[in-house]
Amino acid sequence: MADRVLVIGADAAGMSAASQALRSAKAAGRSLEVIAVDRGHWTSYSACGIPYWIAGDVPSPGALVARSPDEHRANGIDVRLVTEAVALDTDAGWVEVVDHAAGRTERIGYDELVIATGAAPVRPDVPGAGAAGIHGVQTLDDGAAVLESLARPPERAVVVGAGYIGLEMAEAMVRRGLAVTVVDRGEEPMNTLDPDLGTQVHAAMERMGIDVVTSAAVTAFETGPGGAVTAIVTDAGTYPADIVVLGTGVRPATGLARAAGLPLGPSGGLRTDDTQRVADGVWSAGDCVETWDRVRRDWVHVPLGTHANKQGRVLGTNLGGGQARFPGIVGTALTKVCDLELARTGLTEGDAVAAGLDHVAVTIESTTRSGYFPGTRPITVKMVAERPTGRLLGAQIVGRDGSAKRIDVCAMALWTELTVGELAMTDLAYAPPFSSVWDPVQIAARKAADRL
Amino acid sequence: MADRVLVIGADAAGMSAASQALRSAKAAGRSLEVIAVDRGHWTSYSACGIPYWIAGDVPSPGALVARSPDEHRANGIDVRLVTEAVALDTDAGWVEVVDHAAGRTERIGYDELVIATGAAPVRPDVPGAGAAGIHGVQTLDDGAAVLESLARPPERAVVVGAGYIGLEMAEAMVRRGLAVTVVDRGEEPMNTLDPDLGTQVHAAMERMGIDVVTSAAVTAFETGPGGAVTAIVTDAGTYPADIVVLGTGVRPATGLARAAGLPLGPSGGLRTDDTQRVADGVWSAGDCVETWDRVRRDWVHVPLGTHANKQGRVLGTNLGGGQARFPGIVGTALTKVCDLELARTGLTEGDAVAAGLDHVAVTIESTTRSGYFPGTRPITVKMVAERPTGRLLGAQIVGRDGSAKRIDVCAMALWTELTVGELAMTDLAYAPPFSSVWDPVQIAARKAADRL
Repeated sequence: MADRVLVIGADAAGMSAASQALRSAKAAGRSLEVIAVDRGHWTSYSACGIPYWIAGDVPSPGALVARSPDEHRANGIDVRLVTEAVALDTDAGWVEVVDHAAGRTERIGYDELVIATGAAPVRPDVPGAGAAGIHGVQTLDDGAAVLESLARPPERAVVVGAGYIGLEMAEAMVRRGLAVTVVDRGEEPMNTLDPDLGTQVHAAMERMGIDVVTSAAVTAFETGPGGAVTAIVTDAGTYPADIVVLGTGVRPATGLARAAGLPLGPSGGLRTDDTQRVADGVWSAGDCVETWDRVRRDWVHVPLGTHANKQGRVLGTNLGGGQARFPGIVGTALTKVCDLELARTGLTEGDAVAAGLDHVAVTIESTTRSGYFPGTRPITVKMVAERPTGRLLGAQIVGRDGSAKRIDVCAMALWTELTVGELAMTDLAYAPPFSSVWDPVQIAARKAADRL
Repeated sequence: MADRVLVIGADAAGMSAASQALRSAKAAGRSLEVIAVDRGHWTSYSACGIPYWIAGDVPSPGALVARSPDEHRANGIDVRLVTEAVALDTDAGWVEVVDHAAGRTERIGYDELVIATGAAPVRPDVPGAGAAGIHGVQTLDDGAAVLESLARPPERAVVVGAGYIGLEMAEAMVRRGLAVTVVDRGEEPMNTLDPDLGTQVHAAMERMGIDVVTSAAVTAFETGPGGAVTAIVTDAGTYPADIVVLGTGVRPATGLARAAGLPLGPSGGLRTDDTQRVADGVWSAGDCVETWDRVRRDWVHVPLGTHANKQGRVLGTNLGGGQARFPGIVGTALTKVCDLELARTGLTEGDAVAAGLDHVAVTIESTTRSGYFPGTRPITVKMVAERPTGRLLGAQIVGRDGSAKRIDVCAMALWTELTVGELAMTDLAYAPPFSSVWDPVQIAARKAADRL
C-alpha cells in the first residue's frame, strides 16, 4: 500500500514539497498518496506579489497563482481547501481537520507529515488592535480583504512598519489615490539597511507623497461607533485612518507544532535538519521554520518565498526517497520604492557592531552604466568587511534602475566566504551599457580592501 | 635620486599602472619619476565606448576620456603624446621614441619599464586589405577616422566579423542611416556563444535591418580609381561597400617586446607573473599580455578594458612597493544588439566538446521578472557542467532588458568552482519586479544538476 503523505499548508513550501515528493518517489519506484489541506482558498501563490495586485500592476489574484488546485489535483495531489488543521498527534500519526465548507471534522492518518503552515502577521499588542479595518498582508485572502476595503473607498491609510511589505503596500495605496502615512519605530525606514542608507529610502517615500513618521511606537488604535478603526495613536502623535495595514513582520504559525511538542527555536520557528526533517516522519519548510544563516552562524527566521520554494523542493526530494540538502542562507533581500531600488545581504554595519565584530564599513557612489552612457543612474554601495581577515560580512545597495540585483554578486561572495580583496578582482561583466569598468560592487570592495 | 618609470602606452592599463605606482610609492615613502609616452592623442579612454560615440549615444570623444593628459600631468606624470616608441634595449635600459609633433627622436633611460602597448586590429591577409576606407576600431583616433568617413556620407557599410565590436559597430552604422551588411565566417554571429544561442543574435540583427552573411570568408577587397574600397569579396558573394569596418579581432601589439626577446605566448601576448612582472625591471598589463584563465587552466589573450584596469592597478601597486596579484579571469563578457542582451562566461558547449570534457549542457527559457509582473521579458540561459563532478564549466545568457548582467552570478560560481547543484541553492535576491522566485540562472543550474 502507498505511504500517505499529509501536507498542512498548500502554498509555496507545501506544494513544492508535495510535487517534488511525487517526482522523487516516482524516480525511486515508490508510490505515495499525497493529501494537502489548507484553510484558505488558494494553492501555490506568490504572496510577494500581493502589493502589486493591490497597486493594480497585476490584474487578478489568479495571476499570482503558479499552480491552481485543479492543476495539482491533475498531478495526483488530493487538495482540500477551506480545510483547517486543528489538532496533531505525532505519536498516533493523525491530524484533525475542519472542513469549513462542509462543516465537518475528521482525523486524517499519515505516514509522513509535512508542516508548511507559514507565518502570520504580528499584531501590535495594544488596545484596538483587533478592530475591523486593520489588515495583515500574508495570504491572497488577506489581499482580497484589503481590496474590498479599498473599493469603499477610504481616503486615509496608515501603514505600521516600514519594512518590505510596509513600503510596498504604502506605494500600492498611494497609487490607488489614498493619502498614506507610514509609522515606524526605527530611526529611518527599512531597518534591514543601516540608517545612513535608510535616509535615501525616506526621501524616496516623501517624493512619492508618503507622510513618513519615524521613531514612533504605536500605543493604540481608535475605533468608531461601528467598531472599525478610525485612527492610530503613537507616542509621536495620532493619525486618522480609514484603513490600517500592518507591515510589522510575521511570526511562524507553529501553534499545532508547539502543542505537539515539536522542536522550536527562539523565534517560534520549527527546527529542521538540512534535509528539512523535524522528527521521525515529520518534515517542515517555508515561513514556519528557522533557517541556518551561514554568515551569522546561527538560526534565523527569514520568511521569504525563495527560501520556501527551495526548502520545499529539498524536503520533497528527501521525503520521496532522494537526497538533497538545504545549505542555508546569507540574508539576501531586495525591493523597490517607486524608482528607488534597495537590496541587502549578510550583515549591516549595525549588525557587525551588535555582534562585537572588528570590522570596516565603506560606502561608495557610482553609476549603473559607464558614466558617459545614456541612461546611467546613481548607485550607492555600502560594504562591511571583517578585520583583519578581510572576509566580506555584508553589503547594501540603494540606487535607481539596474542597481539592486547586483546584490547577487555580494551574496555569492558571502556564500563562498571571499575577502573583499578577492571580490574586487573577480571577473564581472563589463560593457558601457551595463556597468562602469570597475563594477560598483568592486569599487566598494576595493575601497574596503584599501581600508583594511 | 628618484627611480624613473617609463610607461609605453597611455590608455587604461598604462595609466592605471602609472597612477597606482605613484600612490603605492608614496605609501611606501618612495619617490618615483613617471614618464608616459603614447603615439596617439589621448590618455585613459574607454575604447569600449567608441561604437556608442559613433552611434551618437555619446556626444564627443572627450566624454570617453576618464582622465585627460593634463589631469595626469597635474598628478605628476610626464605625459608625452604623439610620441611613438620604436626601439627597446632592456639590457641597457632605454627606449627610443619618436616625437612625431616635434619630428625628434630620443632615447629615454628607465629603471622600471611598463609595456602597455595594447592590441591592434587584425587585417585579413587578402588583396586590398590596406585600402582606404577600411577601418579598425581600437583607438579614439580610429573612431575619429570612422566618423570623418561617415560625414561624407557613405551609403553602404560592410562589417567583417560578428563579434562584440562587429555587432556594436553594425548597430551604430544602422543608427547613422547606412545600409549595413555583416559578414562572418561562423555558422551564426557571435561565436563566443554556441550557435543555438547565436540564432537569437542573428534574428535580432535582422530585426534591426542588418544583412547578415554567415559561413563566408573574405577573399579580397575591391578598390576604385582613387584606391578606396568599393566592395568586399567573399566566397559567398561580393558586397558593395563605401566603408568597411573590421571586427575581426585584435592581436597583441608586442613588436618591440618581441624584438627585445621578452617572453611571449602563442597569441603573441607577453607572459607575466601574477604581479604583472615580465622580467627584471619590466612589467606589462592590458591588451598586450596573456592572462591566466582559471576555467581553461591555460593562458589566453582576452583584450578587455576591465582586465586592463585591474592588471594596471596590480602592476602599479607592485611597482611602487606594495603587494597585489592578478588572480586571472573566467572569460566573462557581454554586450547588446539593439534590444537583445547577450553574455557569456567560462566554456561554451563547443569549448567543452573541443576540450574533450565529459559534460552536460542544458538550456532554459524564463523571465527577467516574475511571470506576472509588468515589464517581464524573456531570458534564455544555457549552462554547461562537468560530469560527473557537477562543477559549473560555463554559462551563456541571451535575453531582453535585465538579462545579461545576471552572468555575474555564474562568473562568481566559476570563480569559486561551485557545482551547479550548489549554485541552484545559493541565496540570490528575489522580489517580483526583479526576478522569478527561482532566478533564471538557478533554474538552469537546477536543470543541469538534475541531468547529471
